[in-house]
Amino acid sequence: MTLCWIDGAPADRLSVKDRGLAYGDGLFETILVTSGQPRLFERHLERLASGGSRLALALDLMVIRQECLAFAAQMGEGVMKLIVTRADGQRGYGPTPDARPRRILQSSPLPAHPEHHAEHGIRLFPCQTRLAEQPLLAGLKHLNRLEQVIARGEWQDAEHAEGLMRDTSGRIIEAVYSNLFLIQGNVLRTADLSRCGVAGVMRAELLDQARALGIAVQITDLQMADLAQASEVLVCNSVYGVWPVRAFERQNWPVGPLTRKLQNLARRLLDI
Amino acid sequence: MTLCWIDGAPADRLSVKDRGLAYGDGLFETILVTSGQPRLFERHLERLASGGSRLALALDLMVIRQECLAFAAQMGEGVMKLIVTRADGQRGYGPTPDARPRRILQSSPLPAHPEHHAEHGIRLFPCQTRLAEQPLLAGLKHLNRLEQVIARGEWQDAEHAEGLMRDTSGRIIEAVYSNLFLIQGNVLRTADLSRCGVAGVMRAELLDQARALGIAVQITDLQMADLAQASEVLVCNSVYGVWPVRAFERQNWPVGPLTRKLQNLARRLLDI
Repeated sequence: MTLCWIDGAPADRLSVKDRGLAYGDGLFETILVTSGQPRLFERHLERLASGGSRLALALDLMVIRQECLAFAAQMGEGVMKLIVTRADGQRGYGPTPDARPRRILQSSPLPAHPEHHAEHGIRLFPCQTRLAEQPLLAGLKHLNRLEQVIARGEWQDAEHAEGLMRDTSGRIIEAVYSNLFLIQGNVLRTADLSRCGVAGVMRAELLDQARALGIAVQITDLQMADLAQASEVLVCNSVYGVWPVRAFERQNWPVGPLTRKLQNLARRLLDI
Repeated sequence: MTLCWIDGAPADRLSVKDRGLAYGDGLFETILVTSGQPRLFERHLERLASGGSRLALALDLMVIRQECLAFAAQMGEGVMKLIVTRADGQRGYGPTPDARPRRILQSSPLPAHPEHHAEHGIRLFPCQTRLAEQPLLAGLKHLNRLEQVIARGEWQDAEHAEGLMRDTSGRIIEAVYSNLFLIQGNVLRTADLSRCGVAGVMRAELLDQARALGIAVQITDLQMADLAQASEVLVCNSVYGVWPVRAFERQNWPVGPLTRKLQNLARRLLDI
């Protein structure tokens, strides 16, 4: 059974005047729930707060926290999606400064990813769709996601579990619904997301955990040539944790020791 | 009284699973209705069809046409907003190839623009928000409009009726909810929209009408320096028609003869 709440009350239908629909004027979080608990919850709230501040959405984080906890307890397990929008608007782009954001919570079952993704690694599809460079929106998990929709539409086969996305200048940024890390000379490297990309909650967590373990980390511009230099490649998000990347076009990587270490860390954090 | 239909039936609430809300996965048109008729209707349908084809949305244009005509007849006058979305989705960006798009029609009253905008011209606000360069989405009137939301939030005063938007490379592209034309040496010039921007219905109409009148037109890259060279500047859209631009920062322009000619054309087309 799926649950759905709008502003704290069970409901599954929304005003057509909602600015989330009209302009994608809002943010979302996709949160794993196990044993009735939202996982990496503080990080999700932190990113939401930062997005709210950048989009001038006056989020009531106390209420959001309480609702998410109550919703997760009812769910038990699955994926909890939280959407916040700038509520109803009149005609016109101008944001109403005193808008009280709307909260939408939806549950869905745990995704049925094949076990071999985590065990033996995945193949990345080479997406032609490029990410536009927009510093004002970079890093945010906002509701303007047509680039991801188009990119995910580029492949239908089950052979590719994810797709590699570059920006319009050719830099490697992320995967369609994951962040990407390369391991080069014992340094854990991931793309700078100041021009585009989504700053994933698991990405932030892995960066912090790696630093705490004394692993060198680098947030930088990544070029396609870096893939050939990498000894390990992995993708991560806050639902499945870490998947090794074993192949991209004609390049192959083993599932390496640092990837396994981060994967185990992610499993503990997600309770999976 | 405002009207609202979803898929042809009166309704003002929408499934929260709609991909228009989740990802901005859809398109819209804002259509002036006078005397029960949608104005520039064939051009609106044409743009919608082109957007649908670029986003792989299988639009039923016959049904859309009939619904819009019936809706406009009931409205009498005002602004009719048509949204089409990729209907309900499951979790995940991947578009379902057989999705039957959802149609949402909403009416709103005619906007109350001061008469002096059209008569004496407007002042443009210099928006700091830049448009990202994304050829895959350029020209489309899609539902990913956070750039316009942020740009429109840059000013609150009534002195500025519109804002000038540039792309991340500094080129002049458009105004927040209008397209922009410059007149330089008797040539009607407007921005190339192959990297970003919305290809407005009134823009297309004015370009065609100008060509038919033997006026030279040029679709090109426009730089800030072009403003200083312009003898007339105007903005246009399919609701208000044409407004002369009289001021931008320290630059001023008269309301010139070509602007008046295009404005009168637009009035006839819109029946205003």
